[in-house]
Amino acid sequence: MPGNSFGKVLSITTFGESHGPAVGVVVDGVPAGLKLSQEDIEFELSFRRPGRLYVSGRREKDVPEILSGIYDGRTTGSPIAIVVRNTDVISSFYEEVRFKPRPGHADLPFIMRYGFENWDYRGGGRSSARETVGRVAAGAIAKKLLMYHDTWIAGRLKSLGPLESKPADFRSVLCSKYSPVRASDKESEARFQDLVKQATVEGDSYGGVAEVIARNPPPGLGEPTFDKIKADLAKAILSIPAVTGFEYGLGFQASRMKGSEANDAIVKKGERLGWKDNKSGGILGGITTGEDIVIRCSFKPTSSIRKPQGTVDLRTGNPSEISVLGRHDPAVAIRGVSVVESMMALTLADHSLRSGVIPTVRLEKSQAEIIEDRWRRYMEECRPTEESQ
Amino acid sequence: MPGNSFGKVLSITTFGESHGPAVGVVVDGVPAGLKLSQEDIEFELSFRRPGRLYVSGRREKDVPEILSGIYDGRTTGSPIAIVVRNTDVISSFYEEVRFKPRPGHADLPFIMRYGFENWDYRGGGRSSARETVGRVAAGAIAKKLLMYHDTWIAGRLKSLGPLESKPADFRSVLCSKYSPVRASDKESEARFQDLVKQATVEGDSYGGVAEVIARNPPPGLGEPTFDKIKADLAKAILSIPAVTGFEYGLGFQASRMKGSEANDAIVKKGERLGWKDNKSGGILGGITTGEDIVIRCSFKPTSSIRKPQGTVDLRTGNPSEISVLGRHDPAVAIRGVSVVESMMALTLADHSLRSGVIPTVRLEKSQAEIIEDRWRRYMEECRPTEESQ
Amino acid sequence: MPGNSFGKVLSITTFGESHGPAVGVVVDGVPAGLKLSQEDIEFELSFRRPGRLYVSGRREKDVPEILSGIYDGRTTGSPIAIVVRNTDVISSFYEEVRFKPRPGHADLPFIMRYGFENWDYRGGGRSSARETVGRVAAGAIAKKLLMYHDTWIAGRLKSLGPLESKPADFRSVLCSKYSPVRASDKESEARFQDLVKQATVEGDSYGGVAEVIARNPPPGLGEPTFDKIKADLAKAILSIPAVTGFEYGLGFQASRMKGSEANDAIVKKGERLGWKDNKSGGILGGITTGEDIVIRCSFKPTSSIRKPQGTVDLRTGNPSEISVLGRHDPAVAIRGVSVVESMMALTLADHSLRSGVIPTVRLEKSQAEIIEDRWRRYMEECRPTEESQ
Amino acid sequence: MPGNSFGKVLSITTFGESHGPAVGVVVDGVPAGLKLSQEDIEFELSFRRPGRLYVSGRREKDVPEILSGIYDGRTTGSPIAIVVRNTDVISSFYEEVRFKPRPGHADLPFIMRYGFENWDYRGGGRSSARETVGRVAAGAIAKKLLMYHDTWIAGRLKSLGPLESKPADFRSVLCSKYSPVRASDKESEARFQDLVKQATVEGDSYGGVAEVIARNPPPGLGEPTFDKIKADLAKAILSIPAVTGFEYGLGFQASRMKGSEANDAIVKKGERLGWKDNKSGGILGGITTGEDIVIRCSFKPTSSIRKPQGTVDLRTGNPSEISVLGRHDPAVAIRGVSVVESMMALTLADHSLRSGVIPTVRLEKSQAEIIEDRWRRYMEECRPTEESQ
Repeated sequence: MPGNSFGKVLSITTFGESHGPAVGVVVDGVPAGLKLSQEDIEFELSFRRPGRLYVSGRREKDVPEILSGIYDGRTTGSPIAIVVRNTDVISSFYEEVRFKPRPGHADLPFIMRYGFENWDYRGGGRSSARETVGRVAAGAIAKKLLMYHDTWIAGRLKSLGPLESKPADFRSVLCSKYSPVRASDKESEARFQDLVKQATVEGDSYGGVAEVIARNPPPGLGEPTFDKIKADLAKAILSIPAVTGFEYGLGFQASRMKGSEANDAIVKKGERLGWKDNKSGGILGGITTGEDIVIRCSFKPTSSIRKPQGTVDLRTGNPSEISVLGRHDPAVAIRGVSVVESMMALTLADHSLRSGVIPTVRLEKSQAEIIEDRWRRYMEECRPTEESQ
Repeated sequence: MPGNSFGKVLSITTFGESHGPAVGVVVDGVPAGLKLSQEDIEFELSFRRPGRLYVSGRREKDVPEILSGIYDGRTTGSPIAIVVRNTDVISSFYEEVRFKPRPGHADLPFIMRYGFENWDYRGGGRSSARETVGRVAAGAIAKKLLMYHDTWIAGRLKSLGPLESKPADFRSVLCSKYSPVRASDKESEARFQDLVKQATVEGDSYGGVAEVIARNPPPGLGEPTFDKIKADLAKAILSIPAVTGFEYGLGFQASRMKGSEANDAIVKKGERLGWKDNKSGGILGGITTGEDIVIRCSFKPTSSIRKPQGTVDLRTGNPSEISVLGRHDPAVAIRGVSVVESMMALTLADHSLRSGVIPTVRLEKSQAEIIEDRWRRYMEECRPTEESQ
Repeated sequence: MPGNSFGKVLSITTFGESHGPAVGVVVDGVPAGLKLSQEDIEFELSFRRPGRLYVSGRREKDVPEILSGIYDGRTTGSPIAIVVRNTDVISSFYEEVRFKPRPGHADLPFIMRYGFENWDYRGGGRSSARETVGRVAAGAIAKKLLMYHDTWIAGRLKSLGPLESKPADFRSVLCSKYSPVRASDKESEARFQDLVKQATVEGDSYGGVAEVIARNPPPGLGEPTFDKIKADLAKAILSIPAVTGFEYGLGFQASRMKGSEANDAIVKKGERLGWKDNKSGGILGGITTGEDIVIRCSFKPTSSIRKPQGTVDLRTGNPSEISVLGRHDPAVAIRGVSVVESMMALTLADHSLRSGVIPTVRLEKSQAEIIEDRWRRYMEECRPTEESQ
Repeated sequence: MPGNSFGKVLSITTFGESHGPAVGVVVDGVPAGLKLSQEDIEFELSFRRPGRLYVSGRREKDVPEILSGIYDGRTTGSPIAIVVRNTDVISSFYEEVRFKPRPGHADLPFIMRYGFENWDYRGGGRSSARETVGRVAAGAIAKKLLMYHDTWIAGRLKSLGPLESKPADFRSVLCSKYSPVRASDKESEARFQDLVKQATVEGDSYGGVAEVIARNPPPGLGEPTFDKIKADLAKAILSIPAVTGFEYGLGFQASRMKGSEANDAIVKKGERLGWKDNKSGGILGGITTGEDIVIRCSFKPTSSIRKPQGTVDLRTGNPSEISVLGRHDPAVAIRGVSVVESMMALTLADHSLRSGVIPTVRLEKSQAEIIEDRWRRYMEECRPTEESQ
């Protein structure tokens, strides 16, 4: 049964395997009239791209080819298909994996579900994080659409393994995308980098917590029962490989509190009503309050590690060990931040369209211009100058 | 846009407001041939029922009337509509609420979304936890269906406010439903009860963490991309009122660990392959491994507290205070455990049907008999004797 | 798998069997703020009600109880559950049917699908046209919503068996609901009545063609690929029991024509562009043109006839005969017109909400007033005076 | 809102415009283990390919590139993306069209819906029949899946304009795909060809009726209420460009009949129960009976004709004329037969998976072998020898 689509009004369908010809996405439900270029998508893809020092060594430029849905630089209301070819594929690493399912990976569950013979084991096949290329490409469109009401999405790595970073304002969070370890301050960056280097040396890996914020979301998004904003966000985030937990606002901390501590006074904020400390992370009753939406999720450590781990050799049925070679992130949480941002953007854009806050059929030209201006500003924000790089 | 349905193959649609004529649910997608009685549903409803000492004082028997889909004691494959009348309704408590939105509640977001005039404020209207009656009624059907492969669902209150309980075996978890505070051991029960009493005296409330386990699930459930088991469970659980976080297996703890610690060796378990310590909580790559599925979620403290809190009077626009009277649970987490169980059962039954592990159209008579036997055993399990009550 | 829901944004789920406790519907996706009363729904139900001379003798008042989604006479945005109790049930007619599946009926296919034991054979069970009560109740809401852009839906019986009626203007179509045989002119009414009487005497039945028109629909509704207006209408109409064909505009006649005959010139109609003769029935490329939408569908003759027909006795496996007693319409097409109207209204309202032509979350008070005025006028239109009845 | 997907369990999403870089489809929900090659898809595409004498002059080889979902010649359960590049594109024909919307086409409705500026007018853009390449590619997979229970799909052109062909047995229908005008007998072929030539000379076009048969379908498919087989087929077929009507079994003819004529006796057919004359076209109560499924649909004449037709010049707002040049089919019904077959195959395969008649997750190797054998036979059936071509 199809499980490769996400979203009800803004709907994406991803396809592709790690070592197949390509990965990609079809984005359906984008209103006509949005300006959209290959550069918009490349910009977002650049922040999940491997090949940088502290992430996987796989070197792919990830050029997104737009096959449909655009005419004269604007969306037409038709589905937008985007394909990214797989170019830097080395499958030889994976021959051993085929018969020795990797702990922490989807190998054995895939075999249980689809049968050994039908399992594309090369590079993790469909369960590879490479699938998220399609999500980030689609996320670029969602983020741009959200500029309609000037909502900006930004995330950071809040903690890496045992290392916690300090609280950060929105701009620091936004600028973390230019940090090699997605840190929101220089001191955390240094500590995170040291830990990553240590993990690399040890042939081990670390988990982490991503925090993503939607600034200035429209109030009133979300449906009261099952399609609560918090529920759809939880699904979106837990659908990301390696994510093991989700919370918003006070999250798990709220479970240890009293009502008088966890509740948040309603106050006047200029002309509008708001909440004093945004303890509920921008969501109450599953509906956005208009305050910033704040979510966090935990990534487990990268499952692929050089250190030997116990498994069973499927050829013999005997206990065995595996040392996972190949090019892997020492902490998937780092690149994962981009994916979390994308899934949050897709969820909020979907609900904005569902609630009619963004027009579902077409944008007026003037609206498209305002979006474009904001998007240009977003793309410039925090951008390092030549010298600083 | 409709947000009141959940599930793709086993699909439920709930309806009803706290102080309207009734709440209820339509359950669609149940295969024909399952034995189903009003008693089956009443049994499950009894564990979320208010009117016991440590929960809300609202006294409703919650009699589920089955309007359709059953013939001669068996399901027919047609939708099963279940209605529970609201009988013990006192709306007078809520007149003040109407103009003083309650902190921590959906009042103001509902007004923002639907307009003040269209908001059924009585008893929280649609956002009341009374909506979950329909979920638990449907959950009874889902739990019974899961008996097809002898999967049992059970939950407990793992922690209440600052109080943590000790680890529990499956049977203790299962029997916690007969504990007035949903505790899995006598010592925790005593401590939880004391805390609840204290909160009641103070006019305050507490949060808590529910832990729910699916024992003996079939391996291979779940779709690799967006409809991962973990993603659908996260959505299911976060759709419950007052839930602020979700995790499975190691959950957030994994974010602080090394890969060599978080990974779990693959081992032989008799004839089958399994995982040594089930660190991944029965799910890898979004697919069930066949090990027990273990999830946890945080409930915030009941938002309705007697202690005065800051709000704004909508009639004057001036800051004001509200002291929420009415009959409320001192800790929604207690009754919430039943709802979490139900949502987990609905998610797993949905995926069992999606994957064809349970037949989608009809059960053979012999299969229905086996299910009935297991269900009878499940209903008897832990049941207190006359004397012990 | 659930097949009891229809519509993506305005979504209905029907439930109930012919001889069970009740039939009903849950309507989800209605924006908040629409005035809605039991009388609105009763009004529409009155035109599909049996118990009149030329239709089935079953006498049920069909009182719709609204269980949810309404507060102070207005919709709240929450799902609207409507239940109609089954009161005039005589199951004894059906004992013979149980073992002698009726030609033209769903009896044997239901047995093939769900198993003999799980089949609620009483009165046709779920396959009874009684299920359409829920559709017509929901259709009342859809029709009322369409008043937002002053779109009116009306249908007539265009032909009965071999008898064709003459072309009719919209008002004659609208007023046909007060004709006992749903005829749009007095002469056809007389001829149709004679044919119905003859069929009753013969113990036989007749088919017919319903024609339904949406006057003044908004242009631009419909999605270009699979969710074309014509496709969604076709599904809606073919989901009605006894319907065997669907066409719009020139329909099957177009297959016998030349392009130069079937094409329709684009012309100026005052300020707007339109089509000269509306040959395409208000739909081009699957999108509404703004011209009236015209659809037709064929109903087969009522399958239940007194005349003996060949079947097989399931107890013996031998050929047998059955003469279907009970109270049946001599031509289901007559009452079917109401159901076709309802399904068309539901489809168009769904697409109006999908395209944002009607607001999806809430109506402003002034909009609701305008709708109410139009609806009152619609309810008064053609209403017979006391004397004329 | 997304309208570019079809099917609930076997789900396809098409994308692409007539003159964009490519058209394509993502097929989700195919169980693992099905053998699938590019040749399988090319085979089906060859029967909708233009460039033959009696159809459009556009010459494209339509090479389907499979981007995902296949490993080692077998499906993996992951989505299958297929892309067909547009190579023979001449957009210059369409400059005039841009400002003179073509009668019978979607031009003006697209402008009404999406705005003039966002309309990709080149070659009809998204509303071009070129979109159906994706449907036929996906249809190949559906047809192959249906071999699981040895169900074969085949169609023919039953009538062309005023010319009716005689009844045909299944094999003649199947072999019509090798007829240049999709005729099921030689005499009809000659008459159809003459009519096509005449239309070409006159600069005009003709409509036609396609008839498609599913031989040997499994009984018991379809859901009783909205997702009736007849309803889902109607939607599938009406979603095809240029289709104006749908019927099954007796279709519209039933509306003119008596019940005693239209009903069909239930009889013993060897071991199983069946229907004497299959008057209901293999469907009763919306559920398959096990008899052959027979559907028909009307295609309107190709809207693009050389003969001048009235329109309005959007630049001036004045009445004008347009003569549609370019390469067009004199009768879209001819190539349309392939598309109808594909949509029927997709609908039936979807329901076979929904009902668990075909396994939803994976095929056993032996099942895949049986399918492959039948498919090979299907591909060989009727194939002209070298000499006969």
